[in-house]
Amino acid sequence: MAPRQKKQRTEPKYELLYHPEIPGRGEYIRLAFEATGTPYSDVSNQEKNGYKKFQNLITDANPPVFAPPALLVHGEDYHGKPLVISQTSNILLYLGPKLGLVPEGDKIARYHVNGLAITALDFCSEAHDVHHPIDIEQYYEQQKEEAKKKAKSFTKRRIPKFFGYFETVLSENKEGDGKYLVGKSLTYADTTLWQVLEGIEFAFPKTVAKLSKTYSLLFSNFRENIKEHEGLKEYLTSDRRLPFSIGIFRHYPELDA
Amino acid sequence: MAPRQKKQRTEPKYELLYHPEIPGRGEYIRLAFEATGTPYSDVSNQEKNGYKKFQNLITDANPPVFAPPALLVHGEDYHGKPLVISQTSNILLYLGPKLGLVPEGDKIARYHVNGLAITALDFCSEAHDVHHPIDIEQYYEQQKEEAKKKAKSFTKRRIPKFFGYFETVLSENKEGDGKYLVGKSLTYADTTLWQVLEGIEFAFPKTVAKLSKTYSLLFSNFRENIKEHEGLKEYLTSDRRLPFSIGIFRHYPELDA
Repeated sequence: MAPRQKKQRTEPKYELLYHPEIPGRGEYIRLAFEATGTPYSDVSNQEKNGYKKFQNLITDANPPVFAPPALLVHGEDYHGKPLVISQTSNILLYLGPKLGLVPEGDKIARYHVNGLAITALDFCSEAHDVHHPIDIEQYYEQQKEEAKKKAKSFTKRRIPKFFGYFETVLSENKEGDGKYLVGKSLTYADTTLWQVLEGIEFAFPKTVAKLSKTYSLLFSNFRENIKEHEGLKEYLTSDRRLPFSIGIFRHYPELDA
Repeated sequence: MAPRQKKQRTEPKYELLYHPEIPGRGEYIRLAFEATGTPYSDVSNQEKNGYKKFQNLITDANPPVFAPPALLVHGEDYHGKPLVISQTSNILLYLGPKLGLVPEGDKIARYHVNGLAITALDFCSEAHDVHHPIDIEQYYEQQKEEAKKKAKSFTKRRIPKFFGYFETVLSENKEGDGKYLVGKSLTYADTTLWQVLEGIEFAFPKTVAKLSKTYSLLFSNFRENIKEHEGLKEYLTSDRRLPFSIGIFRHYPELDA
């Protein structure tokens, strides 16, 4: 893991380009920075006129950004402009080795970390689609009946399927001691899955309460361990940590078991 | 690009582990192999008792496979077993440099290729969710009314959004001459997007007929160019190329514009 650094007053190398005020998919990137004490600017939340700057930067990127989050990297020009990378798992793939969030000296393990992060992000996307099964540009209230139907299959079958999968990953990674998905130290697959579990519990507290005893590695060893990591522990009690609200993960009691 | 090789009679280095008889997400991996003339075994479709072998191999993998496709690589052991990688974009990420399907000597471009392939695969997943908006374990007929609603927003807004995005990517990649998404030669982002366009046209022919003139780089330059690549041209007329049917991309006339 990269040594923890104090936040700098000079311009940081990394700028996170994401919507303001919600954790959303930007949170997966924040967790990677915070877990390793890496200086970064959360442009929309921390800079004056940051939201405007965020919009300009993602509009100006080449290749263009389909949807945020995106990452701007100073000192890494691409075709004469600062490098901008998009797609959540792609940003994490780029940052992983630089921040020490992949197993050291094991290039193959990087593909496992990437694959597991993608699977955790798929779980996140499915949780979003539960409250927006028909049309992402309409309100939840306009698709509430369909959402209730989708919530049934999600809570009964999909949540247990994902929980069971990650429980097996933890139990089969012998050197991880039930605490890490790959290898014996923190990777961005861990921080990403951890955040998805937080979101799933926020959105579906009753379902998680019922299931959490069944998946004991996931809910005792893994989940409790991750949040005790030095950088994360401090971050989670800071005002930089944004609460869930009506973003990707939403708590509608009628959608919970 | 890797030199084209004759198919070998000896065991190939790569085994594609996927369901039999449908193109599905396995097709994105097949196209990478076929475009570069790389020997591979399509286990479920080409080997005796292949479907059983496929099931055994994905059950035995560590980390486990959440969902196929997976890739088995001979000669790359991981913890004493042949390496098995899963998640479609992750497999392509692994194969890209080995098969010459990323720009040579430009490590940054690899992240753009990965990001664009992920976006194309997101488009594929959304197309799937149109016919299964509520529950992937139930039949289309059981969620047909919800599917019709979702099809409206998908054909009216999401398809144009994705087409417009990739049209812009093509027009801004000056060295690609409207034929390649990144750089000036074929990448796996190209083969992946190309297959998604084929699937979208199969599923929504009227919608595509209406829109294709608006996105001329995408539908004239890009789409026509990709299928003329040596390896692909031969593959597309071979019996290894599986037709669309009722997999991810499905043609239900009531869901088309």
